[in-house]
Amino acid sequence: MIRVGIVGGTGYTALELIKILLRHPDVCITTLTSRDESCPALSDVHPQLRERLDLNFSLFEINSFTEQVDFAFCCLPHAASAEIVKQLLDRGIKVVDFSADYRLNDAATFEQWYQVEHPDAARVGSVPYGIPELFRTEIKNAELVANPGCFPSSALLPLAPLLSQNLIESTPIIIDSKTGVSGAGRKPNLKFHYPECNESVAAYGVGQHRHMPEINQIIARVCNLEISATFTPHLIPMDRGILSTIYVSPKQGVDASALQNHLKDFYREETFVRVTDMLPKTKDVSHTNFCDISIAQCGDFAVIVSVLDNLIKGASGAAVQNFNIMVGLPETTGLV
Amino acid sequence: MIRVGIVGGTGYTALELIKILLRHPDVCITTLTSRDESCPALSDVHPQLRERLDLNFSLFEINSFTEQVDFAFCCLPHAASAEIVKQLLDRGIKVVDFSADYRLNDAATFEQWYQVEHPDAARVGSVPYGIPELFRTEIKNAELVANPGCFPSSALLPLAPLLSQNLIESTPIIIDSKTGVSGAGRKPNLKFHYPECNESVAAYGVGQHRHMPEINQIIARVCNLEISATFTPHLIPMDRGILSTIYVSPKQGVDASALQNHLKDFYREETFVRVTDMLPKTKDVSHTNFCDISIAQCGDFAVIVSVLDNLIKGASGAAVQNFNIMVGLPETTGLV
Amino acid sequence: MIRVGIVGGTGYTALELIKILLRHPDVCITTLTSRDESCPALSDVHPQLRERLDLNFSLFEINSFTEQVDFAFCCLPHAASAEIVKQLLDRGIKVVDFSADYRLNDAATFEQWYQVEHPDAARVGSVPYGIPELFRTEIKNAELVANPGCFPSSALLPLAPLLSQNLIESTPIIIDSKTGVSGAGRKPNLKFHYPECNESVAAYGVGQHRHMPEINQIIARVCNLEISATFTPHLIPMDRGILSTIYVSPKQGVDASALQNHLKDFYREETFVRVTDMLPKTKDVSHTNFCDISIAQCGDFAVIVSVLDNLIKGASGAAVQNFNIMVGLPETTGLV
Amino acid sequence: MIRVGIVGGTGYTALELIKILLRHPDVCITTLTSRDESCPALSDVHPQLRERLDLNFSLFEINSFTEQVDFAFCCLPHAASAEIVKQLLDRGIKVVDFSADYRLNDAATFEQWYQVEHPDAARVGSVPYGIPELFRTEIKNAELVANPGCFPSSALLPLAPLLSQNLIESTPIIIDSKTGVSGAGRKPNLKFHYPECNESVAAYGVGQHRHMPEINQIIARVCNLEISATFTPHLIPMDRGILSTIYVSPKQGVDASALQNHLKDFYREETFVRVTDMLPKTKDVSHTNFCDISIAQCGDFAVIVSVLDNLIKGASGAAVQNFNIMVGLPETTGLV
Repeated sequence: MIRVGIVGGTGYTALELIKILLRHPDVCITTLTSRDESCPALSDVHPQLRERLDLNFSLFEINSFTEQVDFAFCCLPHAASAEIVKQLLDRGIKVVDFSADYRLNDAATFEQWYQVEHPDAARVGSVPYGIPELFRTEIKNAELVANPGCFPSSALLPLAPLLSQNLIESTPIIIDSKTGVSGAGRKPNLKFHYPECNESVAAYGVGQHRHMPEINQIIARVCNLEISATFTPHLIPMDRGILSTIYVSPKQGVDASALQNHLKDFYREETFVRVTDMLPKTKDVSHTNFCDISIAQCGDFAVIVSVLDNLIKGASGAAVQNFNIMVGLPETTGLV
Repeated sequence: MIRVGIVGGTGYTALELIKILLRHPDVCITTLTSRDESCPALSDVHPQLRERLDLNFSLFEINSFTEQVDFAFCCLPHAASAEIVKQLLDRGIKVVDFSADYRLNDAATFEQWYQVEHPDAARVGSVPYGIPELFRTEIKNAELVANPGCFPSSALLPLAPLLSQNLIESTPIIIDSKTGVSGAGRKPNLKFHYPECNESVAAYGVGQHRHMPEINQIIARVCNLEISATFTPHLIPMDRGILSTIYVSPKQGVDASALQNHLKDFYREETFVRVTDMLPKTKDVSHTNFCDISIAQCGDFAVIVSVLDNLIKGASGAAVQNFNIMVGLPETTGLV
Repeated sequence: MIRVGIVGGTGYTALELIKILLRHPDVCITTLTSRDESCPALSDVHPQLRERLDLNFSLFEINSFTEQVDFAFCCLPHAASAEIVKQLLDRGIKVVDFSADYRLNDAATFEQWYQVEHPDAARVGSVPYGIPELFRTEIKNAELVANPGCFPSSALLPLAPLLSQNLIESTPIIIDSKTGVSGAGRKPNLKFHYPECNESVAAYGVGQHRHMPEINQIIARVCNLEISATFTPHLIPMDRGILSTIYVSPKQGVDASALQNHLKDFYREETFVRVTDMLPKTKDVSHTNFCDISIAQCGDFAVIVSVLDNLIKGASGAAVQNFNIMVGLPETTGLV
Repeated sequence: MIRVGIVGGTGYTALELIKILLRHPDVCITTLTSRDESCPALSDVHPQLRERLDLNFSLFEINSFTEQVDFAFCCLPHAASAEIVKQLLDRGIKVVDFSADYRLNDAATFEQWYQVEHPDAARVGSVPYGIPELFRTEIKNAELVANPGCFPSSALLPLAPLLSQNLIESTPIIIDSKTGVSGAGRKPNLKFHYPECNESVAAYGVGQHRHMPEINQIIARVCNLEISATFTPHLIPMDRGILSTIYVSPKQGVDASALQNHLKDFYREETFVRVTDMLPKTKDVSHTNFCDISIAQCGDFAVIVSVLDNLIKGASGAAVQNFNIMVGLPETTGLV
């Protein structure tokens, strides 16, 4: 059994992570931390877990934490996360980090978009980005993996293979994403108060969302190509799920059907990416680690529709997939 | 009092129409028809209207209908509508038609997209399109107005003034629309069964939705410009509301802010179009006849966000606005 | 035109009140106050009202307020409200108070359930309770009316006539209520955070909800009868609407059908209470001032189902109905 | 590996059953039947299952079915189910039946409430009722188990131990249940059309729901006690989950706290029933096989709140729990 600790366990991604790990045959969760000084009972924070895990929250303390764990999942907010991650790596604990701290190619871009000094700047750019379907080899040998953003996962899975093979133009790339409200986290805020977002759709962060540079930089890393995607997220009255509608221009002689076939070939051996003929909806992948993708033609554009569960393939499922690879277990363990 | 009849009164747009007309000081609803041979009681079909309107449904019969009404709203499906509308016009009854039958510029395009012979082909192309903010003069003198589609209304209100003034490129124009489920009508269907569309988002009709040629043709009519917009509708788990996110390329030297200012000027005197600095959400206009629009920059693109209530400004509110103009009443009567 | 001021205008009930008053032909809203020292712009707080009312929020100041208004609606929380109300009454301004401060029969019960000293204890017990269908005469002559709680409105409208006529036993009376989340107000709180209450139902405040003594005391006032109703509210994933399912024992020789007929007679002349043969659902009354009631038999119990919109008949619609009565206007003005 | 067949695999309970069985280590699904003569592809009916199970639907044929399976789950509607079940039993195939056909104590009651002749009347009354926490011994030795109704499960789990121990009066027992829409099945119907039931709550089947005699008869079987529970189900705008609020009178000298303690003792060794101090909400048990129960005092009544997922503990999870017992596997296999 691999002893696992979770740093920052009170949010929605941590809850999903715990639920997956409770079904994982090779894992034992040994410690859960929270920054809440009251050290609440687990079942008060996550009533779903009543009687399922005999642990309460404790404050993070590096010595006791590292004594109890072989592997850590870090679910803290950006900047707070890297402070802990670097300590864990120094003690030889492997980590999957859920924050944005190690996703980008350079610390300068991080500091520009997140408006905070990076606590571990030297490491940025050398950490594998945790989409196994694109970075499996690097992940296999890594001490630290940067778990990807939920929107970028939905966009990069279809875009990277198409741009790599030069099948679509690098501009325009328009990503219109729709997400359930759990993506906004668990902290109460008027914008996510039930009567504010129920029965309503809103765009937000137009031209300013931090997942935009993440998408651009990962494409640069995978495809050696500069793109400047237009990304607009929308808040949808549902708990979970992301649907990204991506508008791209196929290269001369290529159409949506050819793009679709290329993706089918590219992902033929992958369990968790399904290229489908029917347009997928988010419910097709709810509570699963799948990303479903389909492509249709509309005039000169190819319209890519990509769906995933923001808390699973967009967060905790991907994290466990990365964990499995990092510790040498079959990649789908606990996930199907 | 103007005596009004409603043809095809069992659907959601008819319900909203009746609710608006019950608050309209100059209108008396005298007859409601349905194609349901059982002639159901009004309150069985629309329990909201219990004790508010002392009428039951009857089958449409041209003589009795025209005796009872000065004006008709026709809420039938396409093709069925034109069959009735032409009879009403022959008897001198003015009509607002909710169907798509008279919206396009030519019957051939209608027949291509709707796959049915047009019952009144000669009239197609000469009927004013019922967006008063763009076609007020024609509407004023019309016997028949083609009430616009809900998606086209959300797209044309921002696009027409910008294209007319040559402020944006005519390509690409990408319209990514999100709609509540009431837009799909009231007929039960697995796709709109509660547990199928709740907690889910789906794209549908990609490249094939009938509102795409409607948008293109009305732009041709208003701006004398051929466009080929890319239009993708999405089904959102909510009752009502449309949010269209529209990606356009500003002309050289123009940015989102300039586009926004132009729209503000263009709609300064209009009650029902509000150009806002904050990004609007559909709830800002729910149950109202307003369309709210805002524009933000994202890289080289301007991102237009336009919201309206699909059953009001996207259907029955616009219909009453057209009615008011056609009969010489103040345009906002019953609508504010 | 009656000049109206609203004290505490940032919440959901105030928004609905403003929307109703904007359609009211005899009213002019002249001032809106908020306890927010930043005095926000109205359209920032309520984007629905953009360009519809040319006012911003100000801090409450008794002199300037009373100079501007003939009538006040007070939408403050309990205790805070009475502090203002007593000042307004001293200056001769009539008031409808939305808080619980003047609903109960005595200040002692208020202080027991609300755990705060009552700022205007002497007046408690002499203020008409604002259900016009039960207290119209008192309301007509009142300077102050206590607008009723949303749950009590749904329960008292069916219960009072049945208990008054001795048609049902006074015990047991079990009121199982279901409410949309807007009833919890607009202040962000984890319990009302979208992903917490979406896709979930919860009971709350079992045996401890403050609307329970309100129901009991108003029955005592109307029927001169001591009851001890069992009241359990539930939070439902929807914006608005209350459905109360009320289990009562008909007296010997009486059945559900007889109860239903008595209610039909009792409310025959009332516009806003509809006794229906079909079981009503909350959507039948959404966005209206109606309360729909139906009664069915289940074994020895009669099961009363009562629905209303918590923000309209359960709050702001009732308030305007009371206002109309207090100022001598037709009771339905602005409400149908 | 136990070869399992599913009869009637197109509905929501079948989908959940398949998802559970795909995670079950000792099961192989070998055949799926549908009454749809077109024999649709599995992924067209259940897109969630794309690439996860290499089977399509076939028509039921007794010989080929029994050759392929060791155990059958029958998910057909009532009456249709018993027709198949009796054939399967004749061939020696063990069955869990999801329908109501074998739940009641006698065929006469079945025929009275379901208004159809029972195809296998002789067997009714001798089939164990599939709540393992109450009938484990009988289930262990059974060839056929009647999987319980979702509402009865939520009511019987708290009621049976309390009535057995004579801790509450046998009358009144008032069960006010709230259910998500998936409980109504997958067949499109205006009542379950998204815009009809979204943003609305409705009571239905008051005094007439078929789960009422089921509750009464199972209590008779477990407790040897005649009760006549008052049962009212309500439709809630959410996918899944049942919350039952149950009003009971504790016996002299007993209060809610004593009832709660008795349930805690009774269910101490049970994995899937959690008696909690905090009031549970349906989301605490969504997508799990748990039933959470809590009891609070309200005046003379004890108010029991019981929650479960109607598709899991209320249907497919319970079915797999029964299956595990019937075939001698650990009861929680595949369910935690």
